[in-house]
Amino acid sequence: MITIVAKFIIKKECVDEFKKLAWELVVGSRNEAGNVSYNLYQDRANPGVLTFIEQWKDEAAIDFHNATEHFTSAIAAMEPLEEAAPEINQYDQLS
Amino acid sequence: MITIVAKFIIKKECVDEFKKLAWELVVGSRNEAGNVSYNLYQDRANPGVLTFIEQWKDEAAIDFHNATEHFTSAIAAMEPLEEAAPEINQYDQLS
Repeated sequence: MITIVAKFIIKKECVDEFKKLAWELVVGSRNEAGNVSYNLYQDRANPGVLTFIEQWKDEAAIDFHNATEHFTSAIAAMEPLEEAAPEINQYDQLS
Repeated sequence: MITIVAKFIIKKECVDEFKKLAWELVVGSRNEAGNVSYNLYQDRANPGVLTFIEQWKDEAAIDFHNATEHFTSAIAAMEPLEEAAPEINQYDQLS
């Protein structure tokens, strides 16, 4: 299993719009066969920091996801809302 | 419930030592009444990036955790192993 933490830094005035796009991405991603979990979080001290924590069965599941329409369209629409480039880490669980 | 993502950037030559300290912290933290989950991850592209993803019942649980001996001693011992200051985010789950 692969865990992805995708941290977005969103302009304050664009947070609500981002959440709408993010919700569509959550719903679409959860429906994919290779997805284990897909959740959205908001930083308690800084509402402009919005992070997806995702779990995928394997690399093939991630490759499939990255080619889906719901992913590519959401990522494209999110870009103008961003204050800085997102921070994406792909992890193996150690413990 | 509160989710914490604590991302550590560790000097390459110190990763094994960090993992030993981290494992003690994982075991100690999981034993706390207020803990929901506490896991360690390693970045698949950069082994020096090691991240805890933690879930806590509430703020009181986090305050208690931050005062425990296993936390304070681990954090102190980890500091000289770090290449940069850790990135800590406390999140509310939106989805």
